[in-house]
Amino acid sequence: MQRNSPHVVIVGGGFAGLAAARALRKAPVRVTLVDRRNHHVFQPLLYQVATAGLSAPDIAAPIRHILRGQANTAVLLAEVAGVDTAGRRLLLGEPAGSTLAYDALIVASGATHSYFGRDDWAPFAPGLKTLEDALEIRRRLLLAFERAESEPDEATRQAWLTFAVVGAGATGVELAGTLAELARHTLRREFRHIDPARARVVLLEAAPRVLPPYPESLSAHARRQLTALGVEVSTGAKVTHVDAEKVVLEGGAELRTRTVLWGAGVAASPLGRALGVPTDRAGRVQVAADLSIPGHPEVFVAGDLARFEQDGAPVPGVAPAANQMGAAAARNVRLLLEGRPTTPFRYRDKGSLATIGRKAAVADFGRFKLWGLPAWLAWLFIHVFFLIGFRNRAVVMMDWALSYLTYQRHARLILDR
Amino acid sequence: MQRNSPHVVIVGGGFAGLAAARALRKAPVRVTLVDRRNHHVFQPLLYQVATAGLSAPDIAAPIRHILRGQANTAVLLAEVAGVDTAGRRLLLGEPAGSTLAYDALIVASGATHSYFGRDDWAPFAPGLKTLEDALEIRRRLLLAFERAESEPDEATRQAWLTFAVVGAGATGVELAGTLAELARHTLRREFRHIDPARARVVLLEAAPRVLPPYPESLSAHARRQLTALGVEVSTGAKVTHVDAEKVVLEGGAELRTRTVLWGAGVAASPLGRALGVPTDRAGRVQVAADLSIPGHPEVFVAGDLARFEQDGAPVPGVAPAANQMGAAAARNVRLLLEGRPTTPFRYRDKGSLATIGRKAAVADFGRFKLWGLPAWLAWLFIHVFFLIGFRNRAVVMMDWALSYLTYQRHARLILDR
Repeated sequence: MQRNSPHVVIVGGGFAGLAAARALRKAPVRVTLVDRRNHHVFQPLLYQVATAGLSAPDIAAPIRHILRGQANTAVLLAEVAGVDTAGRRLLLGEPAGSTLAYDALIVASGATHSYFGRDDWAPFAPGLKTLEDALEIRRRLLLAFERAESEPDEATRQAWLTFAVVGAGATGVELAGTLAELARHTLRREFRHIDPARARVVLLEAAPRVLPPYPESLSAHARRQLTALGVEVSTGAKVTHVDAEKVVLEGGAELRTRTVLWGAGVAASPLGRALGVPTDRAGRVQVAADLSIPGHPEVFVAGDLARFEQDGAPVPGVAPAANQMGAAAARNVRLLLEGRPTTPFRYRDKGSLATIGRKAAVADFGRFKLWGLPAWLAWLFIHVFFLIGFRNRAVVMMDWALSYLTYQRHARLILDR
Repeated sequence: MQRNSPHVVIVGGGFAGLAAARALRKAPVRVTLVDRRNHHVFQPLLYQVATAGLSAPDIAAPIRHILRGQANTAVLLAEVAGVDTAGRRLLLGEPAGSTLAYDALIVASGATHSYFGRDDWAPFAPGLKTLEDALEIRRRLLLAFERAESEPDEATRQAWLTFAVVGAGATGVELAGTLAELARHTLRREFRHIDPARARVVLLEAAPRVLPPYPESLSAHARRQLTALGVEVSTGAKVTHVDAEKVVLEGGAELRTRTVLWGAGVAASPLGRALGVPTDRAGRVQVAADLSIPGHPEVFVAGDLARFEQDGAPVPGVAPAANQMGAAAARNVRLLLEGRPTTPFRYRDKGSLATIGRKAAVADFGRFKLWGLPAWLAWLFIHVFFLIGFRNRAVVMMDWALSYLTYQRHARLILDR
């Protein structure tokens, strides 16, 4: 609070960055949270924005609004261009050449999807990491049905009505299941020349089963639920080529489609490499037991950008892990500034949940597992509960109830880019 | 309904086009509504999207969803490039060269703002006619406060905190009043280096009073309410120059501002001129008494694109007039196809309402006039009532109540273009 209190800078307003800021609420430090966007996004519900069930503001809130009551904290909208760890300062993108000095730094700039070195596929197969991504996917999905409606050629019409989702992790499964619902129910009776229910939704996964990190029994349940929703699930299907008109699989099989969604791969934020310490293949920073980086006890990494191994496996890139890491990094910043030894981070796995569609989800709470309606209800209530803001919780609950009863999805807008 | 029923084509899914389509619901015709966007927008609430109070899907709905129950009607997403009135067909933009034949045509493609021949001002002073416009204005308004927060130079900071609204018609008054509220209340306590309440909102109007079409007494009330909300009202102020850093007025006065919003002028859709009949200076089509165009009794124009004089004055470009014209044009299409004489259009003025901000509005119902809280409540209930869809009415009412109690505006997202 004092002008000369130590300055803690946090990069990123995702789950990890916000958790870190909140944990420093009462600390005798000045905090600056830097993000290149003005809003925090509740990423687990991004697929609902992409499939027109929710609008962007329903799942996002301005970071400075979230932290408005925290007097020791300032929020700065800026792009971080690099880190001068020796000089203890961030290099900011704008105004060019400006810097931000810190006494302690928490980097939580996250990760995005990766095209495994085939970035030329990106224009044809958008991924889902930001609100802009979600709105672009929404635009493409809705436009595909419109193009099909006015397309005279039968083969081209069928290509517009074919949707490929690459990767059957949580994002891919959610997108495929909800898209099948959109086609089969929401759009029913709205077109005159096509039957949207005839749309094909093809989920392509290179691994032998969907939701690879889950126990095999839940993968099997997920596959059954996807099939029941009308998704064609293709496992062991490795994509070797993507362009504006098709996806090609290893072995040569071709899928004629005008709409490909990307739900595969992880690429850490480039800030990880800018720290000048070892990273893994995806660019995640190998952190020490206390989440600091080698040679710089005052720099911590948290969330999806951190690679932290526990019991022989990396901690997964999920919201609860990011929350825990952010809070732990902040705790260690306080200990460090007080001259006390930092404490090791320990991830407490509270279980995994993935939703698939209407009344369809899987949940792995270790000792007990859920699927179908019970898993879906658990998923729904946990996710609505963690949304930020009373208004958003109320609206999202209402939209869920309305959409459950009527199959309607209210955000079906095609906006120009 | 029969394949060989007459084909009625409607261009535009605004108030006039939708009213026309609905009026043909039970007519023995095939109807095609063509729009280049997939959604109808409730334009009277666009300013709420621009000022982050509502999200885009709250005030818009897919046209084909609105008309889904109307079996004789198809909806086509397409750009209309021209009209071949001799050949009775529309020329469509995509696929290039395609056409759409009609037996009767209703053109209701609306109007946008005009820069009075200074289109070079457009990049610096966005107007408000579409959802894309509203989202761009929202982005600029919110970004201006962010830039001010990180700006070290005092004069530049003040330029970021100065907002000019050009034109004190309904749109300009709404934008200025709500923007003042945003600065003074919503953003309070969220910044650390600036006080958003010190922002200047300057409303510039060339005419001698605000809301020129209203009675003088209501203009005076509107001005008083604007001033109470913190808006600087400048009448008799003619803009002669706009660029990225300033607005210049006739007489040479300069206003240093980084954010200019445009609420002046009317320019009809270019389709009006494509009909090859006389238009007024704004490009509106001079229609006959039955809303048809000279020489083409099977072509009607309705809504903002039509210039229709009644009792010596043009019918105003407001939603109720568009609704009435759309329905009247449809009625005349039916009469024409039945071989009966068409009937003249008569505008029934039910009054004018303009909102200014919290508890501030003016209403002119001819014999009696309202201002302040009663006018605001009348405005609110009438507008919520006419929104399309139960969900939107419920959400907008809730957002209004929440915003009234807390001053919060939930859609404060800065999204990349």
